[in-house]
Amino acid sequence: MESWVDGQPADVLSLKDRGLAYGDGLFETIAVHGGTPVLLERHLQRLEAGCRRLAFNVDMRVLSAELIAYAQNLDNGVLKLIVTRGDSLRGYAADPSTPARRILQGSPPAAYPAIHAKQGVRLFPCTVRLSEQPLLAGLKHLNRLEQVLARAEWSGIEYAEGLMLDTSGRVIEGVFSNLFLVHDGVLLTADLSRCGVAGVMRAELLFQAKSQGIATQITDISLEQLHQADEVFVCNSVYGVWPVLGYGSARWSVGPLTRKLQTLARTLLDA
Amino acid sequence: MESWVDGQPADVLSLKDRGLAYGDGLFETIAVHGGTPVLLERHLQRLEAGCRRLAFNVDMRVLSAELIAYAQNLDNGVLKLIVTRGDSLRGYAADPSTPARRILQGSPPAAYPAIHAKQGVRLFPCTVRLSEQPLLAGLKHLNRLEQVLARAEWSGIEYAEGLMLDTSGRVIEGVFSNLFLVHDGVLLTADLSRCGVAGVMRAELLFQAKSQGIATQITDISLEQLHQADEVFVCNSVYGVWPVLGYGSARWSVGPLTRKLQTLARTLLDA
Repeated sequence: MESWVDGQPADVLSLKDRGLAYGDGLFETIAVHGGTPVLLERHLQRLEAGCRRLAFNVDMRVLSAELIAYAQNLDNGVLKLIVTRGDSLRGYAADPSTPARRILQGSPPAAYPAIHAKQGVRLFPCTVRLSEQPLLAGLKHLNRLEQVLARAEWSGIEYAEGLMLDTSGRVIEGVFSNLFLVHDGVLLTADLSRCGVAGVMRAELLFQAKSQGIATQITDISLEQLHQADEVFVCNSVYGVWPVLGYGSARWSVGPLTRKLQTLARTLLDA
Repeated sequence: MESWVDGQPADVLSLKDRGLAYGDGLFETIAVHGGTPVLLERHLQRLEAGCRRLAFNVDMRVLSAELIAYAQNLDNGVLKLIVTRGDSLRGYAADPSTPARRILQGSPPAAYPAIHAKQGVRLFPCTVRLSEQPLLAGLKHLNRLEQVLARAEWSGIEYAEGLMLDTSGRVIEGVFSNLFLVHDGVLLTADLSRCGVAGVMRAELLFQAKSQGIATQITDISLEQLHQADEVFVCNSVYGVWPVLGYGSARWSVGPLTRKLQTLARTLLDA
């Protein structure tokens, strides 16, 4: 489907855009089902928090209306929204009055093999570490070279995702997913205050688990804790939940809490 | 002057470009004097090293020829070269066969106040720290949100540059400059193996100083060492050398080695 820039059909962008020059922007990847953006409120909340943190001049009402209209046209697929700080001249300094630029791109539904969700996946042990930058942690910003380098570490179908540690060796997330463990009935996921992307599906699963009386914990996770987990899964807002079967020498079977949350995610994505 | 994309006049870019999507690219900012790119070989060397590290599929001969032709047309000014990994579909994985995209943009000569070079500048103490990522350290890549945030910390003319420390508190560089100290006749600059941009002017000044028998040292620099320095200056490949007069409570006067290297940089930029 044709892309939109600031509400108008377009397939190109100004060369002066700061998203290109500095990665000075944010993005959201949103599943669209039957014309409806899935988990829209959570995507908009994260985006708004990012715009606040980066001091973007963005009209969230305009953006939200555009996104809804674009999703209706897309019907079923994946909507990618990029918001940049707009154009500027040479130099890092930005004019705070410049309106942020809104880019909407649509693509067909993600074509992951069904076996990933059914039987589970193995995680490639990425050697690229996530650097620690609390000012940017949690945001889905456009500075993604670490993910690009990590994703280039493996090819082929043996690994559906890779696991990334931070520079201190903590277990953080997948290259394009968040990670959860289950340990003694408690659902754990990494603290993302130093690095990592605070995924929308991660937030929703934490919320749903709590609502159902499941204990949850956002905490630092060591490789040792990962190895000792009873269940492991990865998630994102496009594919939902994939059980994790292996990482390095560790092996897990698909557990009941993983299946429960997977069903829940599937229901949201197919709603 | 009109921009070029892959050798053709253009002022727009494909929305699928990975430079926009992920900051998956590199750049060089090159002074052009009388149609000649200043320190061209060093710029090309750094760019080539970056392309190798990021595994870009780039033809350096084509790029170099284009750059020289563009500079001739520009005559006097600043040439910005951006090289991205080109277009891709959704997802971090890249097709290694996709040719890198070359973007050339020209602007008039930089209009910094002459007083910066003559009398010196004060450095704003940026609170934004540089995160440590050895895989990207030294490269002039497009993931520049830390610099954008740091540059937004001050406005007005009191400070011409800001000083950035890394997350461990080491003194690294300016927001758009490298930093040098003189201590007991030795010229020191920060080790950039964990973070920072290895500037072309920094490399040239180190080379020239060594050629003239001046002792040089690339090393970790603490705030204490900065405070105790005899001379301090910043440099880049557009403005040359600015003496540093103050940072926080520290004060310096403009020293002889600073003036010597400033003259040398000026000669290169005006050659």
